[in-house]
Amino acid sequence: MVDLRSDTVTRPTPAMREAMATAEVGDDVFGDDPTVVALERQVAELFGHEAALFAPSGTMANQIALQLVVPPGGELLAGADAHVVTYELGGAAVLGGISTRTWPSVGAALEPDAIAAMIRPPGYPSVPTRAIAVEQTHNLGGGGVTSLATLRALREAADTAGVALHCDGARIWHAHVADAVPFAEYGALFDTLSVCLSKGLGAPVGSLVVGSAERIAQARVLRKRLGGGMRQVGILAAAGQHALEHHVARLAEDHARARRLAEALEPYGVVQAAKVRTNLVPLDLTGAALDAPSLAAAAAERGVLIAAMLPRTARVVTHLDVDDDGIDEAIKVLGELLS
Amino acid sequence: MVDLRSDTVTRPTPAMREAMATAEVGDDVFGDDPTVVALERQVAELFGHEAALFAPSGTMANQIALQLVVPPGGELLAGADAHVVTYELGGAAVLGGISTRTWPSVGAALEPDAIAAMIRPPGYPSVPTRAIAVEQTHNLGGGGVTSLATLRALREAADTAGVALHCDGARIWHAHVADAVPFAEYGALFDTLSVCLSKGLGAPVGSLVVGSAERIAQARVLRKRLGGGMRQVGILAAAGQHALEHHVARLAEDHARARRLAEALEPYGVVQAAKVRTNLVPLDLTGAALDAPSLAAAAAERGVLIAAMLPRTARVVTHLDVDDDGIDEAIKVLGELLS
Amino acid sequence: MVDLRSDTVTRPTPAMREAMATAEVGDDVFGDDPTVVALERQVAELFGHEAALFAPSGTMANQIALQLVVPPGGELLAGADAHVVTYELGGAAVLGGISTRTWPSVGAALEPDAIAAMIRPPGYPSVPTRAIAVEQTHNLGGGGVTSLATLRALREAADTAGVALHCDGARIWHAHVADAVPFAEYGALFDTLSVCLSKGLGAPVGSLVVGSAERIAQARVLRKRLGGGMRQVGILAAAGQHALEHHVARLAEDHARARRLAEALEPYGVVQAAKVRTNLVPLDLTGAALDAPSLAAAAAERGVLIAAMLPRTARVVTHLDVDDDGIDEAIKVLGELLS
Amino acid sequence: MVDLRSDTVTRPTPAMREAMATAEVGDDVFGDDPTVVALERQVAELFGHEAALFAPSGTMANQIALQLVVPPGGELLAGADAHVVTYELGGAAVLGGISTRTWPSVGAALEPDAIAAMIRPPGYPSVPTRAIAVEQTHNLGGGGVTSLATLRALREAADTAGVALHCDGARIWHAHVADAVPFAEYGALFDTLSVCLSKGLGAPVGSLVVGSAERIAQARVLRKRLGGGMRQVGILAAAGQHALEHHVARLAEDHARARRLAEALEPYGVVQAAKVRTNLVPLDLTGAALDAPSLAAAAAERGVLIAAMLPRTARVVTHLDVDDDGIDEAIKVLGELLS
Repeated sequence: MVDLRSDTVTRPTPAMREAMATAEVGDDVFGDDPTVVALERQVAELFGHEAALFAPSGTMANQIALQLVVPPGGELLAGADAHVVTYELGGAAVLGGISTRTWPSVGAALEPDAIAAMIRPPGYPSVPTRAIAVEQTHNLGGGGVTSLATLRALREAADTAGVALHCDGARIWHAHVADAVPFAEYGALFDTLSVCLSKGLGAPVGSLVVGSAERIAQARVLRKRLGGGMRQVGILAAAGQHALEHHVARLAEDHARARRLAEALEPYGVVQAAKVRTNLVPLDLTGAALDAPSLAAAAAERGVLIAAMLPRTARVVTHLDVDDDGIDEAIKVLGELLS
Repeated sequence: MVDLRSDTVTRPTPAMREAMATAEVGDDVFGDDPTVVALERQVAELFGHEAALFAPSGTMANQIALQLVVPPGGELLAGADAHVVTYELGGAAVLGGISTRTWPSVGAALEPDAIAAMIRPPGYPSVPTRAIAVEQTHNLGGGGVTSLATLRALREAADTAGVALHCDGARIWHAHVADAVPFAEYGALFDTLSVCLSKGLGAPVGSLVVGSAERIAQARVLRKRLGGGMRQVGILAAAGQHALEHHVARLAEDHARARRLAEALEPYGVVQAAKVRTNLVPLDLTGAALDAPSLAAAAAERGVLIAAMLPRTARVVTHLDVDDDGIDEAIKVLGELLS
Repeated sequence: MVDLRSDTVTRPTPAMREAMATAEVGDDVFGDDPTVVALERQVAELFGHEAALFAPSGTMANQIALQLVVPPGGELLAGADAHVVTYELGGAAVLGGISTRTWPSVGAALEPDAIAAMIRPPGYPSVPTRAIAVEQTHNLGGGGVTSLATLRALREAADTAGVALHCDGARIWHAHVADAVPFAEYGALFDTLSVCLSKGLGAPVGSLVVGSAERIAQARVLRKRLGGGMRQVGILAAAGQHALEHHVARLAEDHARARRLAEALEPYGVVQAAKVRTNLVPLDLTGAALDAPSLAAAAAERGVLIAAMLPRTARVVTHLDVDDDGIDEAIKVLGELLS
Repeated sequence: MVDLRSDTVTRPTPAMREAMATAEVGDDVFGDDPTVVALERQVAELFGHEAALFAPSGTMANQIALQLVVPPGGELLAGADAHVVTYELGGAAVLGGISTRTWPSVGAALEPDAIAAMIRPPGYPSVPTRAIAVEQTHNLGGGGVTSLATLRALREAADTAGVALHCDGARIWHAHVADAVPFAEYGALFDTLSVCLSKGLGAPVGSLVVGSAERIAQARVLRKRLGGGMRQVGILAAAGQHALEHHVARLAEDHARARRLAEALEPYGVVQAAKVRTNLVPLDLTGAALDAPSLAAAAAERGVLIAAMLPRTARVVTHLDVDDDGIDEAIKVLGELLS
């Protein structure tokens, strides 16, 4: 089986398993796990923030961060295709009483002026906008990377309006590699970030919320309420440390494989290869014979797993556990099914 | 003072006061108020639905209806400028755990195909879309009227996808007058409607939720939880009955006055008169010297009240309590301030 | 029909209708209704607080007040039979994210030390207690009146622990009459109060939240979100003004009639007349042949309406619209059914 | 340091680490992790239920289970000292819109008749009771064990009223060992259970929700929304499998050590040794010179860690990582501080 459904399917390497097996641990609810404390410090420093907090998933890291920047009854602006809007099962509204107003799906190609025009200041009878969320890289936006210039313009707009800026940075590692932007430059632009160790980096479990010391202290309470307070977290944090040391630079290989696959499928009219800059290859099946579930099912029968994200959107993802042979096989199977 | 902030400012006429003073009443929490029962039956029949429920405000009527068609964790599609998104202070998320995904602000000019494309069916890892809300006439859309043809296309899209359709019909009376569409034709298109007696119709208090008998039975529980269970409601319902009998057809006068005012202000570049079809005149102050709060303050000093809806959006509203002299005065004052 | 289900069933008197018919009104969402503004000022001053806010029901007034004193995730202590716990359909949790921990049902006979012992201070891994709610008079506690001494002891305990104290004063008028305690003395003991015009006082609709100017400003936002923002509220407020002037002292008559009815029913073992101090007569049907719904149904067939509050608890209520003959009739019918 | 704060502080044994290091894993969000699937099946069968679901914490397992048995707006009955009421930071209300009504703190000594009398059936204007939660063993109840006879009486009461029964079985392993009751007999009594691998059993992370196949399918959605969907969970599940095989029977040693410690501290009037039946030793400091935080701080300075649960309640816990020497040391230090 060539599993290209997501970079979340990666299994820990032998070296990563060794790091977990020998990790020093303690009870993290009491703040006693030295490995997770060290990882939190490392990630906070990487992004130039004061503190960070480990969470069991990217969804929880995002939901905690949203609650940090938007009080119940406040409004979040986000893209209509953002992960926080689409794939977190309504958590912002259910868990945090947060309203979302969305701009049309343009993936990573944000328009700071248009977003700024959506902001509703307090003092009117309308819901006050309290934060804007962006996603770097953008999942439903085909792994697209928002440029530093665009993010800076958005930061400026947020500052002008006095609203917070959150980055869903589940795959910010890929943006860093694709655009050669230092993590601290990204970090400086956001009030809060979530980053994920369990996608492209290959750790089995774990995300972190990054922010100010005060916000992260509040985050600890929110995490407990959501059920994210775990005990000997060092087992998982050690995998994260290993991943940060060994699995960031190599993402360039995943990007190259994704581009190669996109180029091979471009003739079928389902993807623009030039837009594939990281490890996600979105397949737009609007004009295809098969819809997303059908294509995924047919490919699975022939040994290639891909994800049906929406009725007419499928996704192919390269990662640590897929080599060149796997890509060759995927090109062959998908090419035949799409022709 | 010429008060053009909203049609909610109308005071009950002597005849309406007389109707209230002589209304037969009972305890409506026990279902014993004959006047409100009669009004609920009348409004349900007007729209061809099984039942209706009185609520203290349009906001509560909308929030009850949204909870009827979207369970906690479900998604509502609505325009980014919809009243339910903008002016109900985040109720959908806070009170109902309802996520909103929004299409760009186009007022009454809906694009059914684009909305249909936003629907996310169950069975994917995404939030399932459960309902679509439209607003007739559209408040921030300048009192625009969505055509019956457009609404029918949207109904068809909703049926295809298996999602519900709600109409925020606070000013559906104005649409009925402007487009000569029978209420029952509107009613047939929606699973739930809210209608308001306290705006153009001139009653002091009251809105109704309209829907199936089963939904309205649930609505009674939701209304109690929200604190909308009132007692001798017949006092207010009698005003509503009077308004339905005497104040619908006369809305044509308000529409004519609004158009006259818009034509007079069109030269200042703040409004397109041809688009003003009902009683709302939106002023787009993007290119004006004064922003909305400044214009409203300056006009108020000179005896004309208008509403600052958003930083660069003001609104002028005609209604029962404004006559031709008031419109002349408003044209004079606003014209001088805008020139 | 003799309607003893609740004091909410009272119909406005001719004089009250006259007051409503001639009330000066405006749009209260804009703060322009002089009658409601005057009523809010009057009630605030009556209780010695800075401000008050009109709400469409006692339930909404309570829910607003609870949200003022307990943030989402905080804890409210209340009696297990309190109206806010029992009859507001879960509003505290659903609308405000407020946890309730309850002391056993003892009606108005509070034990301040026991309540104080339940308080959980911040700084532990437990939910912090943020407020205590009491009910004066106590509905399911049979209209019992909590003594000033007890309330003062509770206030002291609340101050020591730094938690707020809310009074559900829907029938605080009756406590005032029964114990001859000035309203301002009650007012001084609580951070927030709700009071109701639509129960014993006989107005058709309306309650008020009472508190500090800062809290009432927040209350205005909460009321709008809950759908309690109404327009020409002066119609209803005029009834409230009339009720405050004419219907408070006369509650003594209702109390006397309730006592007389309780004394007549005491022989059947369903009520202790000595405990009936205001206008509510609770019937404990634990040992009776008929349960509450059956007794209520049988009495209704014979022209006497009473309320089935819980499976074995019925309630008989005296009020403005029941005279001595009605009480005689109720004694006759209930006596026969209970024997 | 002798760490007696909680049995959550245990570190994985070398054999458990080996099991984790060699665990077969997959992406559990896709249902592909064979180890967690096997563990879920094993735990479901152990309790005689159809299905089980892994969760990152006992708090999340409880919150998911509560949402399975109580809809938003429904009521849960629980003890005032229950973990779900006290230590989950208001999750039931905030995350699930669930109201709690509580019976007085009596730990494991439940009174089924009194609880049954609290149930409020649907059909009245009151909040309907939908579920009852018990805790086995009872944390703030000093590790007390509720007898099978009592639980059966409660089950009968729940069935009569048509409400669900949930067991917070974080330490149900200890009850099984203390009372020699088969897990399946416990399982048969409850609609849902939560069980924890990370307390007495010594695994680093993990709890499970147990219930019907239909409920566990819903639980999967709730877990995702709460942020509990993790990826290569087999790493953690393998520790759980190891714990179930090797660490259940040995809990008898922890119980014996707890009893020995309680007997040694009984003379200081802070604990009744006869009531200590499992691994928790509650210290009631109501009459002591030191309150809970002071005692905990003083003991910590001398190398013994205990938990301050509430201002006057401390807790000492025996577990896998404390041997007889540790207990001797704790007896010495605490004895000196309490005398």
